[in-house]
This record gives sequence, C-alpha cells and structure tokens, in this order.
Amino acid sequence: MRNILLIGAGRSSSSLITYLLNKSFVENLHITIADITLKNAENRILNHKNGTALELDIFNETERQTAIKQADIVISMLPAHLHLNIAKDCLTFGKNMVTASYISKEMKALNDEAVEKNLIFMNEIGLDPGIDHMSAMQVIDSIREKGGKMLLFESFTGGLVAPESDDNLWNYKFTWNPRNVVLAGQGGAAKFLQEGRYKYIPYHKLFRRTEILHIDGYGKFEAYANRDSLKYKSVYNLDTILTLYRGTIRRVGYSRAWNIFVQLGMTDDSYTIEDSENMSYRDFTNSFLPYNPNDSVELKLRHCLKIDQDDIIWEKLLELNIFSPTKKIALKNATPAQILEKILKDSWTLKEDDKDMIVMQHLFGYELNGIKHQIESSMVCIGDNQTYTAMAKTVGLPVAIATLKILNKEIKTPGVQIPINKEVYEPILKELKENGIIFKEKNVPYYGYNLESLN
Amino acid sequence: MRNILLIGAGRSSSSLITYLLNKSFVENLHITIADITLKNAENRILNHKNGTALELDIFNETERQTAIKQADIVISMLPAHLHLNIAKDCLTFGKNMVTASYISKEMKALNDEAVEKNLIFMNEIGLDPGIDHMSAMQVIDSIREKGGKMLLFESFTGGLVAPESDDNLWNYKFTWNPRNVVLAGQGGAAKFLQEGRYKYIPYHKLFRRTEILHIDGYGKFEAYANRDSLKYKSVYNLDTILTLYRGTIRRVGYSRAWNIFVQLGMTDDSYTIEDSENMSYRDFTNSFLPYNPNDSVELKLRHCLKIDQDDIIWEKLLELNIFSPTKKIALKNATPAQILEKILKDSWTLKEDDKDMIVMQHLFGYELNGIKHQIESSMVCIGDNQTYTAMAKTVGLPVAIATLKILNKEIKTPGVQIPINKEVYEPILKELKENGIIFKEKNVPYYGYNLESLN
Repeated sequence: MRNILLIGAGRSSSSLITYLLNKSFVENLHITIADITLKNAENRILNHKNGTALELDIFNETERQTAIKQADIVISMLPAHLHLNIAKDCLTFGKNMVTASYISKEMKALNDEAVEKNLIFMNEIGLDPGIDHMSAMQVIDSIREKGGKMLLFESFTGGLVAPESDDNLWNYKFTWNPRNVVLAGQGGAAKFLQEGRYKYIPYHKLFRRTEILHIDGYGKFEAYANRDSLKYKSVYNLDTILTLYRGTIRRVGYSRAWNIFVQLGMTDDSYTIEDSENMSYRDFTNSFLPYNPNDSVELKLRHCLKIDQDDIIWEKLLELNIFSPTKKIALKNATPAQILEKILKDSWTLKEDDKDMIVMQHLFGYELNGIKHQIESSMVCIGDNQTYTAMAKTVGLPVAIATLKILNKEIKTPGVQIPINKEVYEPILKELKENGIIFKEKNVPYYGYNLESLN
Repeated sequence: MRNILLIGAGRSSSSLITYLLNKSFVENLHITIADITLKNAENRILNHKNGTALELDIFNETERQTAIKQADIVISMLPAHLHLNIAKDCLTFGKNMVTASYISKEMKALNDEAVEKNLIFMNEIGLDPGIDHMSAMQVIDSIREKGGKMLLFESFTGGLVAPESDDNLWNYKFTWNPRNVVLAGQGGAAKFLQEGRYKYIPYHKLFRRTEILHIDGYGKFEAYANRDSLKYKSVYNLDTILTLYRGTIRRVGYSRAWNIFVQLGMTDDSYTIEDSENMSYRDFTNSFLPYNPNDSVELKLRHCLKIDQDDIIWEKLLELNIFSPTKKIALKNATPAQILEKILKDSWTLKEDDKDMIVMQHLFGYELNGIKHQIESSMVCIGDNQTYTAMAKTVGLPVAIATLKILNKEIKTPGVQIPINKEVYEPILKELKENGIIFKEKNVPYYGYNLESLN
C-alpha cells in the first residue's frame, strides 16, 4: 500500500478524492483525508475501504508531522499561505508534495534542498494556475519544435454557470469564492502587451476594456484583463512576444453592468460603512449618491452613471434588489465589498440542481517560414452536480493525476516546480482528456491584435 | 534676550522669520535659524542683528540637544514625521514647542508629561490645519454662546494662483508640493455627512462630485471633498451635526479636466511604467489607451473618455503637451504619478513675477430660537512675491504669532494641543487681521445642503 495524505477537504477536493479512491484498488493506494473538521473528511470518504478520515490541526506540529511521516506523498489543498510548514516537513521527512496554489517566494526558496533530496514539490497544478500552464505549454512547445516564432499569446479562463442553469440577467452565479469575484481586479493597474506596446488599465476602467471571444457551440463571451499578464513572459519563455494578455471570462454584458458597482464605489473593501447593520439595500445604494431631498435614489443613480431609460443594465440592477427599502444589510461594521457580496449572494447562489461551467481559451500567434499562423484552443467543462462541479473536476483531477504519476515515478525530475515541462504536462493532459477535460484546437487566420478595428 | 530656535528654513519659513526678526527689538528676541543647509538659514536672516544661522543635523543628538537647551521656545518647521525627537528633547529640557503639522498619535501621547511640566506643545497652527481651526471655532463658539445649535459646517481651502498671474486654461499653478496635488484624494473613499446621511465618494468619482462656492470679489470656485471630513466631528464637538464637509478649492472647470488624468490612470503611484525614461509624452498617454494601428492617440483618448470635439477640456490637455511625440519623460522607472507631475511642472510652475493666492471659506448653519441661520466666512490672501507667498504668510504668521504669545505667557494653558480654544485663537486671529489675513463674515439665508437642486 502506498499512502497518500491529503490535507484540506474543502469544496474543490471532491473529484480529487474520488479519482484516487477509484484508483486505490488497482494502484494499491491508501488515502488519508485530513481536515480541521473530521466530518468534512468523513463525508468525502463515505466509508471507502481505502480511505481514512483524520482530524488535523495543521498548527499542531506533532499531529502534523506524525501524519506526514506516515505518507508517501502529501497533497495540500489548504489556502496558499498555509503550505509552507507542510513543505518544510516534507523536506525533513523526504516526502513529495503537490499543491494547486501559486508558488510562493518561500516555496521557491526550498528548490535547492528539494533537488538535493530528489523530491518533487509540484505547485500550480489545478485549473488556473494548472491546466492553463499545461495546455498552453503543449502548443507553445509544438510551435517551437517545428521552428515557429511566437508572436501572440492570449489566454482566458472563467468559472460560470452552465447554459442549462443560466437563468438570470447577468448570466452569472457564484461558482467559487464570492469574495474574490467582488474584489476582482483590485490592487493595481492591469498590465499587458499589445503588439509590442505595454498597456495599463486602472481598476475603474477595467470592466470597460473587455475583449470578445467565441467558443464553438457556446457562443460569445467577454473577458476583462487580469492584473498579471506580464509575469507569464519569463515563465513561458516568451521574452520577445508582441502580444501577451490574460483575462477572466464572463458572458457578454456582465462587465458593463458590473462597472456600475465599481463606479459607485460598492466594491471597495478598505473602509467600513457607518451603521451598516441597520441599513436597507436602498440606503446602501444611496450612500454613494449625492444628497437630494427631492430626487429618488433611482433617478440619482441613473443620472450619476448616465444610464438610459431602456438600458438592460437597469434591469440587471433591479434584479438584484439594490433599491429595496425593506431588505436589510444586517452586517455589522461591514465594508462596501462585504455588503455587495451579501446582496449578490441573494441572487447569484447556485440552486440545488444548478450546474457550473469552466471555460478556457488560448490564442497562439506565430510565424513559421515567413508566414503568420494562429491556433485557437478551447476547453469547456460542465459540472455533473453540486459535488462534482466543473470547478472541482478541473482543479482536483490534475492534482490527483499528478500525485499518482509522481508516486509511480512517471514524473521524476525533482525540484520545486510548476507543470510547464513536457514530462509533466504530456501524460497529465492525456489523462485529463480521458476524463472529459478536452482542448479543441483549430487553425484560424492570424489577425494579430484587435481584429475588429482592423476591418 | 529670549531665544527662539527655529528648525527648518524651508519655503514656508520666510514670513515666519521676518515677523520674528521685525519684533526682535521691541520684544527682546534672538532667533536661531537651524537648517541642514547653512546657506538656507543664512538667506533667511540676511545678517539681521538678532538672528543666527546654525547648521544642524537633527539626527545628531548632541548637536540637536545643545541647540534646544539654549532656547526658550522651539519651532519645528520640519516634515511632520521628524518632530518627535525634538518634542522629547523639549520635554527633557523644559521647553515649549510650536509646529504647523497635524498632531501625531506619538505627539499626543506626550500630553500628560507636558501638562505635568507646565509646557505648551502647540500643533496644527499653520494654514490648514491652523487658520481653519481658529476661524471656524471662533464662529462656532459664538453661535453656541448665544444658544444656537449647529446644523451644518462646510469648510473649503485652496492654494491657487493669484488672479493677476492666472494665465493658463486650468487657472492653476503649483504653489505648494506638486506631488501632493497629483496624489490628491487617493488612499480611500472621501467620507462626509449631508443632512444626516453618511456619503462616500470613491477616488475615481471624486472630481465629478464638486461643490460650487462664491467669494465676493473673486467669483466662482469649485471644491472637491477631502478624505477626512468626519474627523472634525469630535474635534469641534459637532457630534449631532447634520452636514459636515471639507473640501479643496480650485477654479471652476479644473476638476472636470483633472478627472481625465484620473480616468486614464495617470495619477497612479503604485507601479512603474516600462522604459519610462525613453518615452515621449505621447507614448505615455498612449500606454493608457487600447492598441490600434489605425487610430491616432488623440482620437482614442477622445473616444475612450467621450470628449466632444469642442470641449474646453481638450484645449486644456493640448496646453499640457500630452500628445507631444518629441518631449521626453526622461525619468527612470517612474510611476504614472511621477511622470504626470513632470509633465504638469512644464506648464504649471510659477514664473518669477507670479503671485499665489490662498482662499478659505466656511459655511455655518445653525438654529436659534426655532429659526435657521447661516453664516458665510471667507478669507483671501494674495502673495507679495515669490518669497513672501500667500502660502508662506498664512502658514508662517500663525506659527510666529503663537510662538511670541506663548513666550509672553498670553497663551498659557499647558499640554499637547491644537488651536481650538478661545485663549489661543482669539489673540492670534486678531493679530492675523492686523497682518492682512482677514475673514469676512456675512449672514446668508439658511439653505441646508444642496441649494441649487432645491429650486
């Protein structure tokens, strides 16, 4: 029996655990699921013969080290800032480790020691980061192998509601941490490259500078720029590329309406609203509008943000009840962002039968023998239900597959790493495909950037 | 001879020093001007019999303490964060102290010891803070003395160019630290009270929610909200007031044009622009606009910010050369805010004969015997020249007057304080008046908030 220790049995661990338990007989695996709440772990195992639930407080060094010592490989599904002690224990006790989180500076600093001890610490192997790295590097490497020179790389990912469950005007529901959705784009200007020029979008303009994308069979989507497009320049070895852009996918029209909240100041998380507890949704909306004893909150908002009588944005706002004088905030000392999150949860929470959807698209522009080419690669994954969501599948399966392949020594290059090497991405993408996570590639004319305005 | 030690002979010390030197014969004063650069101190004294220049590094404890020991009172005109060591020495050696800076938590913490040793540490006694406190509290106290109840307090201050030197389309030049002008309003939402309702304006809307004010003889001005209106609630004992608003004064139209820079993202100080050194002003402007090979930077900006062909905003932008392909930024690793500051300095630097102007206006609404009243109190001060600027006069004279009155024991209540008590503001305002810093009060109908929309 090989022992796998998984720490953290949150929402995104369902597919991961099921995959490993399903493989446990053939692969001779025992999986220990550790969580601060024993019940969470038990609910994932459902008395499976090859699974054990463990109550674990990761801040208790003895408990933690005892669990790690007994494992052959450790998966941490904890929040990113909690991985480090586990990583250090893995070094001490000579265990491989897998996480789906962005690699931290502190994690990176363990590389030399990991290499020396022949250990693999695989990070960023979920969806985004994870599947995005692997699917992009596979195409980029293939372009390079045939002698092509990369000109353009654009990459878009979104967690959305599946078409069959898409029943509100925003075409959006929360399929992941709502707080991150409310705060999306904050903390600095978005930076990217367009045809060799660095471009900067301040937060308050972010949702008015969207890109349009099409995915066969699913129609039109939009994307707003991520803050971090440039950091992939060196990671993917794209130092001479002309266009480099990463974005978050929404259904068309979402960003234009979301911009209303940004403009009002409702997404601000830096201060608390006076007496938020006793406010109505209407009071909250009014607090961002000028005082006037004669005009309605509705007219003040329409005027302030120049919303026409018949603009669909208006229906989207009404759908969220932001003018309700009776619905109460009922949150003490809350920031605008916390209040907005609460208002949105009323309308954007998935219903019991709702399914989610993950959408990813990459565009690769390159030059080969003097001719410019473009490849479009798209993936859509729809959740089975509220347990095996598309999010849980796309985050958990690559983690599970990587874990097993490290255990089976199919992946063997040691070091603190992310999945951008062929040895890693090739077998994992192959198995993801067998599990329904499929990228469809097609050749399209090379347009360079900003197709439509060139016509 | 009584010895006054003034530390820091920067731009705002001219009127302060001249006042004290002029009084030195009658009042038996000797003034030591200490500065890190001896020349600065010498230039202020110009061989006056009762003045001594001293080269002083305030981080050299021996030098600093030697100077303080010899003084009867110490004035610190250093940046606010440098006052504390001086204040501690003043406690040790039993000296009074005067500053024009906002009182810090650390400074406030010295209060008990100051009271115990019967010392006065007078802070916030420049222009803003300073003259604003004194002129406001004089009216507020008089309203209270006759039994009135405060309903509204609005207070506006601005450092502008004098009408006779006002020769650009923005009706603005830098009369103080340009960096503060570029960063104005950043760091959080502006908060204030209007008719009992808390209102919040996010930074990116700040310059579109201005108030209009009129000053007899000087015409129309506008003001945008300061971030800190609410902190005066407890300081002025206005806990039940309905409207509380503080703002910064500009000439009408400034804010609407400034908003263009905010919208573009040019005031951001949180990241550096790639290769800023070799950019033209035009490149800089273009970096905030979408890539398009066919459209001009001009058209992209007009379209992005919806600026009409004949909008005066456009002329204001042209006046600053922000589309110049030949003018170079020539600043390494500069933030957008640093670059914008440089561009503005080309156009907004005072010429040799230019004069500056300080404008302040308070509105006081109150109820007395069931009737509502309003008082409007305005002050305008114009600089004599580039040495005795309106800024230097309004910052330096209250400091000088307070220093002399503390020395002469006309002000005698000990403690770490700001000038909100009658003992302090009454004699100082009287003498400011004799020096041409005059508030004109008039009774106006009580309008409450938002006069124009009530018609």
